[in-house]
Amino acid sequence: MNREKLIAQIKKKQSFLCVGLDTDINKIPKYLLELEYPIFEFNKQIIDATKDYCVAYKPNIAFYESMGARGWESLQKTLDYIPQNIFTIADAKRGDIGNTSSMYARAFFENMSFDSVTVAPYMGSDSVTPFLAFEEKWAIVLALTSNKGGLDFQNIKMENRNPLFKQVLETSKNWGTDENMMYVVGATRAKQLAEIRKIIPNHFLLVPGVGAQGGNLQDVAKFGMNADCGLLVNSSRGIIYAGNDVDFAKKAKVEAQKLQQEMAAILTKL
Amino acid sequence: MNREKLIAQIKKKQSFLCVGLDTDINKIPKYLLELEYPIFEFNKQIIDATKDYCVAYKPNIAFYESMGARGWESLQKTLDYIPQNIFTIADAKRGDIGNTSSMYARAFFENMSFDSVTVAPYMGSDSVTPFLAFEEKWAIVLALTSNKGGLDFQNIKMENRNPLFKQVLETSKNWGTDENMMYVVGATRAKQLAEIRKIIPNHFLLVPGVGAQGGNLQDVAKFGMNADCGLLVNSSRGIIYAGNDVDFAKKAKVEAQKLQQEMAAILTKL
Repeated sequence: MNREKLIAQIKKKQSFLCVGLDTDINKIPKYLLELEYPIFEFNKQIIDATKDYCVAYKPNIAFYESMGARGWESLQKTLDYIPQNIFTIADAKRGDIGNTSSMYARAFFENMSFDSVTVAPYMGSDSVTPFLAFEEKWAIVLALTSNKGGLDFQNIKMENRNPLFKQVLETSKNWGTDENMMYVVGATRAKQLAEIRKIIPNHFLLVPGVGAQGGNLQDVAKFGMNADCGLLVNSSRGIIYAGNDVDFAKKAKVEAQKLQQEMAAILTKL
Repeated sequence: MNREKLIAQIKKKQSFLCVGLDTDINKIPKYLLELEYPIFEFNKQIIDATKDYCVAYKPNIAFYESMGARGWESLQKTLDYIPQNIFTIADAKRGDIGNTSSMYARAFFENMSFDSVTVAPYMGSDSVTPFLAFEEKWAIVLALTSNKGGLDFQNIKMENRNPLFKQVLETSKNWGTDENMMYVVGATRAKQLAEIRKIIPNHFLLVPGVGAQGGNLQDVAKFGMNADCGLLVNSSRGIIYAGNDVDFAKKAKVEAQKLQQEMAAILTKL
């Protein structure tokens, strides 16, 4: 999906919500475990319940990978079930030397047909650029993450006084364009979004950590939004585990709708 | 496998060779493609031919992942086929927030039974420590990689004058011990091994890039070896693609043996 289509979906649905499919076999309602593909069945019901309120789905690949070949089948089934007009993110945090990153890109863009993959920047340009060689596909590069360990390296100052995450933005923004690159910026550091916007005014930002990780949607919008919206705000646990019984999808729908309405109010002010 | 057993294997085999199983369906001999599991069949023959000369195997996970569920089956079959006394490395470059890294650790240590996983440090402590919670298992953290892009961030100076890779070593060495952590250090930067040894004298180093990527074994040993050897030197393409016909395994054997003999000569001087 290209930038234009993504923006059109945001306007049409009045939403910039991404639903994180961190589907954990130990957390889904027990009655699903009797089915052949419990993870897929859970995702299917979540997708049916939330697809009108979100513009993106983000399966967290670790949760599928931890279940072996069967997990990958569940992931493929989930991807196939997501409507074509919804942006898909393989939250995989991949990144390796060039020929290996090419293999990861093929895994997610060709073998499966994700629109985007999250990528770690530590190994530099040739670990990211292979993901930029596919039409209408995206690399979403980690800049500032919302976890506690994010401070260990991302925020330490370089000799030129920039914290590392700014150096990552400055250097990497020239590897691609705002048509094939986005950045991960954790919501718990919302005020830093203003500084980030000075470096990359036009790129889309994928913002995890609203809800369970403590971020605030109003702050994210205030400091991070641009003229095209430029945000995908993710919520995982707050939506998919809103309930834990046969009505889990209904409860997920309520939470997704709540966020969508808050987003619609924000978008009106654009 | 614990440190003691690994060192014992190195002494017994007079080798610190790791064979990288970067098995590419487009590069293996064509006659294998008629089989049900060509990737596994290739690996099986490579393992049979090289197992006496190496102490570790390192499947590059991207190459399996790019083939979907079937690729994961080939990986599992390969892992099952590797003899118990050989150290196994999932070269996966994983790393995410704590609960997600735990899932990746389960994927590679429990669902499969790898001895170690390569991990990217950008997301900090909670992205690495979940890999340290398993007995006789290892996290192998990226410090200095041998690819061109490795220079983009790893080598830029921090405010305290350390290049980033040294900061990564200084900070992360306290997350675990030399019994459950190793570091990736590219062979093309062999002289930097001496500086690295000042920070982490005892840790094992996984050194890729000897051969195809231009590194030199003598230099690596000179600057990187410690009293327990402390090195695993990887060769992938130079061994597994030494031949491209029915005799590919025989040719791989010759290359592996050549490196083992060079290593034996180096170890004698320890």
